Amino acid sequence: MSAALELAQSLIRCPSVTPADAGALDVLQKALEARGFDCKRKVFDGDGSDAIDNLYARLGTKGRNFCFAGHTDVVPAGDTNAWTVDPFGGEVIDGRLFGRGAVDMKTGIACFVGGVDAFLAAHPDFDESISFLITGDEEADAINGTVKLVEWCDQEGEKFDCCLVGEPTNPKYLGEMMKVGRRGSVTGWLTVFGAQGHVAYPHLADNPVPRMIRTLDALNSRELDQGTDHFQPSNLEITTVDAGNAATNVVPAKISAAFNIRFNDQHTGADLKKWIEETCTEHAGAHELKVEISGEAFLSNPGKLANLIADASEKVTGKRPEMSTTGGTSDARFIQKYTEVAEFGLVGQSMHKVDEHAMVDDIENLVTIYAEVLAGFFD
Amino acid sequence: MSAALELAQSLIRCPSVTPADAGALDVLQKALEARGFDCKRKVFDGDGSDAIDNLYARLGTKGRNFCFAGHTDVVPAGDTNAWTVDPFGGEVIDGRLFGRGAVDMKTGIACFVGGVDAFLAAHPDFDESISFLITGDEEADAINGTVKLVEWCDQEGEKFDCCLVGEPTNPKYLGEMMKVGRRGSVTGWLTVFGAQGHVAYPHLADNPVPRMIRTLDALNSRELDQGTDHFQPSNLEITTVDAGNAATNVVPAKISAAFNIRFNDQHTGADLKKWIEETCTEHAGAHELKVEISGEAFLSNPGKLANLIADASEKVTGKRPEMSTTGGTSDARFIQKYTEVAEFGLVGQSMHKVDEHAMVDDIENLVTIYAEVLAGFFD
Ligand SMILES: [Zn+2]
Ligand SMILES: [Zn+2]
Repeated sequence: MSAALELAQSLIRCPSVTPADAGALDVLQKALEARGFDCKRKVFDGDGSDAIDNLYARLGTKGRNFCFAGHTDVVPAGDTNAWTVDPFGGEVIDGRLFGRGAVDMKTGIACFVGGVDAFLAAHPDFDESISFLITGDEEADAINGTVKLVEWCDQEGEKFDCCLVGEPTNPKYLGEMMKVGRRGSVTGWLTVFGAQGHVAYPHLADNPVPRMIRTLDALNSRELDQGTDHFQPSNLEITTVDAGNAATNVVPAKISAAFNIRFNDQHTGADLKKWIEETCTEHAGAHELKVEISGEAFLSNPGKLANLIADASEKVTGKRPEMSTTGGTSDARFIQKYTEVAEFGLVGQSMHKVDEHAMVDDIENLVTIYAEVLAGFFD
Repeated sequence: MSAALELAQSLIRCPSVTPADAGALDVLQKALEARGFDCKRKVFDGDGSDAIDNLYARLGTKGRNFCFAGHTDVVPAGDTNAWTVDPFGGEVIDGRLFGRGAVDMKTGIACFVGGVDAFLAAHPDFDESISFLITGDEEADAINGTVKLVEWCDQEGEKFDCCLVGEPTNPKYLGEMMKVGRRGSVTGWLTVFGAQGHVAYPHLADNPVPRMIRTLDALNSRELDQGTDHFQPSNLEITTVDAGNAATNVVPAKISAAFNIRFNDQHTGADLKKWIEETCTEHAGAHELKVEISGEAFLSNPGKLANLIADASEKVTGKRPEMSTTGGTSDARFIQKYTEVAEFGLVGQSMHKVDEHAMVDDIENLVTIYAEVLAGFFD
């Protein structure tokens, strides 16, 4: 059994459901210190969120600094009775490693370590730097994790020459897809007000529903863009509309709706917020609107790192991964402000689900890919 | 105290909240029998509704048959603590008769009787017919009331030469308004189906909200008509829209809405139902639709009866009432199939409310108006 697989098991056996750490960072720190890494723990709190433990580790003090980033926290196991194994057992059965975090992304972190081992074994004279940026707050609020850890690194003068995030980016097989950017996300909550009344006397009432419909139609019909070379088109989805009025002879006093935009780098959250506000002002009449920007779009212009990952994947798996920007947000959005970021990890199919698991073959291949990326980077 | 006022008090003192009769029809029957009316009680039941007691009474066996129609059932008192009097006390205070049904429409029935008394006193040689069509099922389902009673009359060979319905038609003062027709009502319930999914992967989901919006917009934007000499324009109101999805990152699987059309005699319920169905088929995609026609529009082409009422009102109150078709539905819709119908009664302002009450002066004037209408009709 490889060191990466064993480390993955040890990490899975810590039930580190956000915000709990449950010893996961200690397990990782011990493994890194054994390899000569200098480890710093940073607990961040405040902003109404739980205090979170984070780890920054660095091997070497000079040269270029290659950074691996990830998170040791996991989502809850959910219905444990529906699992066929202990979600925190880290069992290997029929070539599969089972457990919460087996895919997202304790095993990815273990593969970082395995990759470093393989790289150092082949490069005993290595004298530049490799670092780990590990948070315990990715799955929940993401307030006291990566965003504060990279700020702290910046203040401390820690520079990164690139950063590989080990999220499970492959939809179905290893080598299928990496992420070189992510779309941004804006959510809006709109309530339109009218005056209640009997349907038989419409002149005494003011129905807010038609104004809501016109507003949502205006929001929904705009083609935000046609997509770019790297991004699919930005998209708005209306997620709910609710008046909650059971009386079919009564005009409701108000109606609410919510919508979410996933947008590419043709837009900023602020621009979209302004457009949403203007559209509501134009069509909604009396209304209340709340708009929340939960992440900006970013494209880590696919450069050296992305191509190294593609080359390494192709060499190891025979597949050259697509450079994608699809899917939800990730902590990569906080890191891309400082350096080139790309994301590449295990197959995500079972993430956040019952019986989450990774193929042992994929784990060993990912170790080799990460080692190849390091070799290419420091070549 | 007049006989009409006393009879109104006796009727109010029977708490005949639909479907209860609470002795109200007995009180009326006794009063009518004392005046020589031949009374027939008809209990109707079935169609999933409560059994309801009804009364058909006729004075005379020949000549023309002038019919008075109304209902002895009332809506619930509601919050009795909010009343300043006993809702079923029938108290007269400062020239006002208080109680549930004081306006809608026990007092109207009492005024019929008072009007008959005055007419007969002035026409001792009267030898035609006056009848009463009284139901206990107007305020609730209207299934076992007027609709069945008029059918029964038709089967029995009872013919009416006109019918005056005593609903409270005057908005603010006696003599302001009569009803010569009513709009119809159609209600629709629409559910549009899609496929649930994450907003970040819209191609894997199918959002039903835009299709619902397009459907509702198409339904709402049609100008049904511009109104007629007797009717205001037909009107559609969307009364609710509901997806009930609290997750702003999830596309909902379905969304429901309800709407109601109040329509004039330019439309039939069947035509509107067909148009609603076609509009949903065109815009809604996968959907379920239920359409209920709860009443057809009718216009009792304002003829002899309506003009007699207008003349009588003008003579007694100095006001010539507007011949209106506004407001909700009434049992007049069932009677107009057989004869000319017009509705004229007390001031409706306090109907269905706390402290429902009628002005004693209005009661005495309404008695005189009804007597004048009879005199004019049989002249
Ligand atoms: Zn993750
Ligand atoms: Zn009524």
